[in-house]
Amino acid sequence: MARLVEVDDPADARLSDYRDLRDVQLRKHLESDQGLFLAEGEKVVRRSVEAGFEPRSFLMAPRWLDGLADVLDRSDAPCYVLSEALAEEVTGFHVHRGALASLHRRPLPPVEEVLAGARSVLVLEDLVDHTNVGAAFRSGAALGMDAVLLAPRCADPLYRRSVKVAMGAVFATPWTRLPDWYGALPQLSAAGFTTVALTLAADSVPIEEAVRGVDRLALVLGSEGHGLTSRWEESADRRATIPMQPGIDSLNVAAASAVACYVAARR
Amino acid sequence: MARLVEVDDPADARLSDYRDLRDVQLRKHLESDQGLFLAEGEKVVRRSVEAGFEPRSFLMAPRWLDGLADVLDRSDAPCYVLSEALAEEVTGFHVHRGALASLHRRPLPPVEEVLAGARSVLVLEDLVDHTNVGAAFRSGAALGMDAVLLAPRCADPLYRRSVKVAMGAVFATPWTRLPDWYGALPQLSAAGFTTVALTLAADSVPIEEAVRGVDRLALVLGSEGHGLTSRWEESADRRATIPMQPGIDSLNVAAASAVACYVAARR
Repeated sequence: MARLVEVDDPADARLSDYRDLRDVQLRKHLESDQGLFLAEGEKVVRRSVEAGFEPRSFLMAPRWLDGLADVLDRSDAPCYVLSEALAEEVTGFHVHRGALASLHRRPLPPVEEVLAGARSVLVLEDLVDHTNVGAAFRSGAALGMDAVLLAPRCADPLYRRSVKVAMGAVFATPWTRLPDWYGALPQLSAAGFTTVALTLAADSVPIEEAVRGVDRLALVLGSEGHGLTSRWEESADRRATIPMQPGIDSLNVAAASAVACYVAARR
Repeated sequence: MARLVEVDDPADARLSDYRDLRDVQLRKHLESDQGLFLAEGEKVVRRSVEAGFEPRSFLMAPRWLDGLADVLDRSDAPCYVLSEALAEEVTGFHVHRGALASLHRRPLPPVEEVLAGARSVLVLEDLVDHTNVGAAFRSGAALGMDAVLLAPRCADPLYRRSVKVAMGAVFATPWTRLPDWYGALPQLSAAGFTTVALTLAADSVPIEEAVRGVDRLALVLGSEGHGLTSRWEESADRRATIPMQPGIDSLNVAAASAVACYVAARR
């Protein structure tokens, strides 16, 4: 059973995991230095613990204790209980879903382990927006992607915004980082996957055509601004596009990933 | 040619259109009271003016003046020029794309005008998140939706976040609000549209099947939390679902709208 610890001083050092959640730069350093990530909201906190992540602590207002009693029962971590006003002072924003947990990160698995048994894999290159990373995980999980691979510079799926938008899909879907950016796609091809890059390149074919009949498929998407790097675009086995209306320059990457996963699931 | 007005006092009353852009409640009141909306970023500012909206004023740091010279040339509105630090003080956030415009809203057209000639219409019920509204407009425009209709309580497509996420699609796509929530879907049916509601209802069929062979189509999506109201779910001609993996509860509404529009475009 988690120890309930009432806190009335927002400067209390034990709350440092929850400090200034809106300050992205500060949080990135703190979370990677400490090896932690945050789950926000009753549903996501529950899913993080059910997925086997070990809580460092919880932080919530008294009214959330009952709903999360079963989760707290299973943990020995402290649960800091404070008013919503104090929680807002610590975190820097209105915590409207009320419950937070800080959890230990786990070492990322090797690529081979993530790919074992996977038939459909989503590969994200240099996405910078945590919301888009979370959305891609959520859509991928709903629409049949078995695993996710990230380029070395892709935004962190365990950053708070990613976790929240993904609704826990970042816990349930096997994922890891590709250690070698340059060789990543040829290595996937060598492992038996057909790599299909989403792009507006002149030689791209409609996505339905590109995935038709493919057994082991790796769907590859690039960053919000400029899409894939030319290295990834050129080293993919196939280049595919989502047919769009004339005069429209592109889809948002989260929307594109949803459409591509839907089409891939029907190949 | 817009008049360039250098400003060095962040409290200058002429900047009131740009005040506290992060305060959603305050902005909602100010923008509807004043009949204005904001465009943010060089590309979106340009598209708003090209779409024929009349600027009240512009606000930008000196380094954005050249890139928008053609837009400023065509307007008589004042352009407030101030440092990025001052702009941040006024707006309450770091304006990283640098240029803002405040524009006059126009009266919304009647539903019949928006539907005239449209074959595919997106209908949004009570979405609350401006990002999702903007994303639905953007995907709809890219994937062949001719028009958008909004329930009376749906979040505002001209709110700054919606406009930004939509990348200007809220200017290019005809849209209006449905004056009568209760009768909205039967009235669309009477106007010759087959209304297809996205839902997890037990009698729903896969979306591909629901839209197959439909001529004039109205795709209907509900709010982020609970989906469609039972009235809209029940008064639609057909109920459709996007097939998902077992154990996954739903797709984000922006992802669902992208997939539904993609499927609808291929009916």
